[in-house]
Amino acid sequence: MSDIRFDIGSLHAAYQAGTGIAEVIDTVLARIEAAGDPGIFIHLATKVAMLAEAETLGPFDPLAKPLWGVPFAVKDNIDVAGMPTTAACAEYAYTPDKDATVVAKLRAAGALVVGKTNLDQFATGLVGVRTPWPIPRNAIDPKLVPGGSSSGSAVATARGVVSFALGTDTAGSGRIPAGLNNIVGLKPTVGALSTTGVVPACRTLDCVSVFALTVDDAYTVFSAAAAHDAADPYSRDIAVQPLTVRPPVMNVGIPAKADLKFFGDASMQAGFEAALAALEAHGARLVEIPFGDFYATADLLYEGAWVAERYAAIRDFFEANETALHPVTRKIIGGARSLSAADAFRGFYALRAYKARLAPVIASVDLFCVPTAPTHYTVDAVLADPIATNSRLGTYTNFVNLLDMCGIAVPTGTRDDGLPMSVTLLAAAGRDGLVAAAARDLHSASGLTLGATGWRQSSARPASALAEDGTIEMVVVGAHLSGMPLNGQLKEAGARFCRATTTTPSYKLYELAGQTTPKPGLIRVAGGGTAIEVEVWRLSAEAFGRFVAAIPPPLGIGTIELDDGTSAKGFLAETAGLSAATDISAYGGWRSFLARTHEAQRQLGSLPSS
Amino acid sequence: MSDIRFDIGSLHAAYQAGTGIAEVIDTVLARIEAAGDPGIFIHLATKVAMLAEAETLGPFDPLAKPLWGVPFAVKDNIDVAGMPTTAACAEYAYTPDKDATVVAKLRAAGALVVGKTNLDQFATGLVGVRTPWPIPRNAIDPKLVPGGSSSGSAVATARGVVSFALGTDTAGSGRIPAGLNNIVGLKPTVGALSTTGVVPACRTLDCVSVFALTVDDAYTVFSAAAAHDAADPYSRDIAVQPLTVRPPVMNVGIPAKADLKFFGDASMQAGFEAALAALEAHGARLVEIPFGDFYATADLLYEGAWVAERYAAIRDFFEANETALHPVTRKIIGGARSLSAADAFRGFYALRAYKARLAPVIASVDLFCVPTAPTHYTVDAVLADPIATNSRLGTYTNFVNLLDMCGIAVPTGTRDDGLPMSVTLLAAAGRDGLVAAAARDLHSASGLTLGATGWRQSSARPASALAEDGTIEMVVVGAHLSGMPLNGQLKEAGARFCRATTTTPSYKLYELAGQTTPKPGLIRVAGGGTAIEVEVWRLSAEAFGRFVAAIPPPLGIGTIELDDGTSAKGFLAETAGLSAATDISAYGGWRSFLARTHEAQRQLGSLPSS
Repeated sequence: MSDIRFDIGSLHAAYQAGTGIAEVIDTVLARIEAAGDPGIFIHLATKVAMLAEAETLGPFDPLAKPLWGVPFAVKDNIDVAGMPTTAACAEYAYTPDKDATVVAKLRAAGALVVGKTNLDQFATGLVGVRTPWPIPRNAIDPKLVPGGSSSGSAVATARGVVSFALGTDTAGSGRIPAGLNNIVGLKPTVGALSTTGVVPACRTLDCVSVFALTVDDAYTVFSAAAAHDAADPYSRDIAVQPLTVRPPVMNVGIPAKADLKFFGDASMQAGFEAALAALEAHGARLVEIPFGDFYATADLLYEGAWVAERYAAIRDFFEANETALHPVTRKIIGGARSLSAADAFRGFYALRAYKARLAPVIASVDLFCVPTAPTHYTVDAVLADPIATNSRLGTYTNFVNLLDMCGIAVPTGTRDDGLPMSVTLLAAAGRDGLVAAAARDLHSASGLTLGATGWRQSSARPASALAEDGTIEMVVVGAHLSGMPLNGQLKEAGARFCRATTTTPSYKLYELAGQTTPKPGLIRVAGGGTAIEVEVWRLSAEAFGRFVAAIPPPLGIGTIELDDGTSAKGFLAETAGLSAATDISAYGGWRSFLARTHEAQRQLGSLPSS
Repeated sequence: MSDIRFDIGSLHAAYQAGTGIAEVIDTVLARIEAAGDPGIFIHLATKVAMLAEAETLGPFDPLAKPLWGVPFAVKDNIDVAGMPTTAACAEYAYTPDKDATVVAKLRAAGALVVGKTNLDQFATGLVGVRTPWPIPRNAIDPKLVPGGSSSGSAVATARGVVSFALGTDTAGSGRIPAGLNNIVGLKPTVGALSTTGVVPACRTLDCVSVFALTVDDAYTVFSAAAAHDAADPYSRDIAVQPLTVRPPVMNVGIPAKADLKFFGDASMQAGFEAALAALEAHGARLVEIPFGDFYATADLLYEGAWVAERYAAIRDFFEANETALHPVTRKIIGGARSLSAADAFRGFYALRAYKARLAPVIASVDLFCVPTAPTHYTVDAVLADPIATNSRLGTYTNFVNLLDMCGIAVPTGTRDDGLPMSVTLLAAAGRDGLVAAAARDLHSASGLTLGATGWRQSSARPASALAEDGTIEMVVVGAHLSGMPLNGQLKEAGARFCRATTTTPSYKLYELAGQTTPKPGLIRVAGGGTAIEVEVWRLSAEAFGRFVAAIPPPLGIGTIELDDGTSAKGFLAETAGLSAATDISAYGGWRSFLARTHEAQRQLGSLPSS
């Protein structure tokens, strides 16, 4: 068996160094064999099929395909074309002819499906033992439950069988198993990843989630999978931020001491305190928050409306096949049969009231940090008391989707009894990038190896340079460039030419609509930018002041990052001023744009004659 | 009986000219007497009580109290302290000891409660005849239904008994009766007006609405009543825009010809076409929109989940007092008894799907214009076929709250048969100001007299001033405001304070992430903006130049449009710099944001102790 590391950076380095994709596929299969755990996968792709899919990828190209040749597993409530979807209920199975939207997007980014993983039936559970298939073994300690409902996905990732795996997370199914298996579990903002092709649990709350060995990997996968999907009415247009450095100081909400619950597990309490100390050492200001309303919100999830939603999702199947269900699942979901529409509204009103009360609390800090699970349970303990143990595991997860928060479960250390320690960072919807940036630092600070693989984390990221000048440099990008119609204004102001250069590749250039003198507008963008040709001029503070004061909207002056590592003041446009403007970034600069369009017009004979 | 006109401008002019409030109260009582309609009010304030309340107002001061001495009526499903709330069901009645939040706010603004008005029982109906009290008579033609459910409020306003009246509007109850009585019906964005102290119909959809003789009056009342209410979980922080001039050109969506429904009423069709011609004459570009999905959304309102919500609102009362209900109301609401929680979710999913499909359609135009009602019905016709006639009246109203739109029903003319013609302008949530600005022009263009009073519309509004200065004005919005941490930088640069004002309502304010000194970022937006509090300072060109050169990204200097009609250079943020930033526009300014978040943290005891 090859010792290729499967974190994406290492795997891509191996491909770059000449490792063949067939060897990687063999490694996947050898690791499945070595794991000796028949509970992980419900269905496996054949080696032939994986090789055939690999064939279609073309040569190694991680720029075009950021997940080129990256093996992944898919929870078996998410459709993969041609593989049965069981939701861990054989009688429910169907074979879809289309991939779920997220699977299709990941495949388009170059990732390879290895198989479908086991789960708590119909994604109802946090334990991983509510399945008619063998129970997957916890990758760190086989006496412990693997956690659920995304049990197989977490274990496959922790064992290094795959680089990442998809789960789903309605009540904590993407976080608890990550926490119990020493890996990262990214639970995005509700609606950021499409649920088209996913068996619903609670349609109003369901998320597709990502298990990975590192935060960077989880975020890379999230970025590749996230997109608005018109076919999913619950899809939202969440702008995926690049995973940048987090702010140096952050206010981090934590449960008030009196509200922390560990159910007597002193090791978990000590582990959580150590994680908080690590957060503080990295610039977090801890803010104790009363947690009663969060817990009360969590209780709603299994007390009425949302259990009815699970029943609604499979009503016809349930009524026709009640005995086919796992006995615990059947008991929970069947309990919702008698709930009335008025009961459902009672639940919505209660949630709305908690949301209104908690909105300013959630807005009062940058992030929250909670234990991922309050304690560990053995398989025996869960089988002996299936509902109470499950319910306790959800202490810090059940409220999250109800309150429209995003989060990442991240390993922070090893408890004094040797079991894995994990916390979950949470934030308001849309702050997935901030949560990931903070989680990355926390994981890095832990010095932990990855999952159950023994692989060390790779370290170090580059810092960016800063340069500033006493007098004022100004970047021009359009009509003020040398030889352009407004360049005279610069000269009249006594400005001197310094240098021609380009911006960093983080900008877009637009041709503004309705200008007397044709002009472009430059804006910085979070992703998909281009390096744009510019000139740097220098002028006195007074001349600069007068110059700035005369710039008409939608143009203004901001800071522009240059390719030579410096930055300077220069022309930027307001995004709102670009409504009728044309994206001309592909030309690389205003001068090239004018030259090419002029040429095109000349060829078409359409240059205005006057 | 005095001939004092009760539109607010005329009434305040009368007060200014020396009319006493006792005379106004006498006029109210004389007009009630003259109306001779025992169906309008369910409960009246006594003259003694009204005089006593008037006593507490102090001298006439329309600046401090914009509704000083303005008489109004309250639909009898909205609490007024000390008056019974019946919801038009005597057996349901209770006497609250507190005003509903909106009533309290209007009283605080100087308005005087005249009494509680009749309605379709439990606000279920659009006809105004589903009441055990006498049916209010349509103010324009007594053969016609008054419209409902806010029947008494509309008739009282149309007859000039009061200056305005509160209604509620879940399915059209604030628009249909306005349309049938030649007055204005403002149905705000859901959540803009608190529903604390309002008997619920559908809590997730209910709105308090305003009936008035003119759009200006309706908007004045709306502005005085709107505020976030922490006691109402469905309350939203909708920034009330000043009622400014509307854009000169607007795209107005109208139902595609084939989708228009008038149920054979050619006069209504002709009246609608005339209204569209008036809109076009005022710069509207009409865009035909297929209306099938809007109608299908409307159908959801009486087909499942939301009828169950009406049942949920009065379940205990209904079960104990079923025979006390109006027979039609009982039939409708009782029909929801057997609906299950799973049925409710089916409704939510269907709505969510329509919302997702219609969101880009709604965003594709500035406004929609639809007939307020498709036809008029006589009282006899409605009594003969109570459900079908009611359902047809809701053709153009039922979908509005489900799709989170705001709207105003506005009179546009007199049909060729002498009956009133009205259209409703609709827009996406939060665009109440735009809708009102357009409705005002349309009403003005109609030249109609007000309600059934015969009073002419007054004309002319003041235009705004323009001012510009040769030296450089700079707009500051955050840490440079007076008293804020960086204000010293301005003073050191020799800057002088000019004025405090707000931007035009075209901006958003964000709290920037990761700042050492907390700072906001302002950006201009194409839609959904807010007016943000700013200060204008003035400084020399050189100081301005140095100042601009020192501004760190993502901030820069652009042109900011101010509410006083001027524009000036000032702080703007790059959109790309807002990745981890929080939208705090709802606070209206940096100062309010700091005050409120600080207060929230203090109340929670969660201000960091270190």
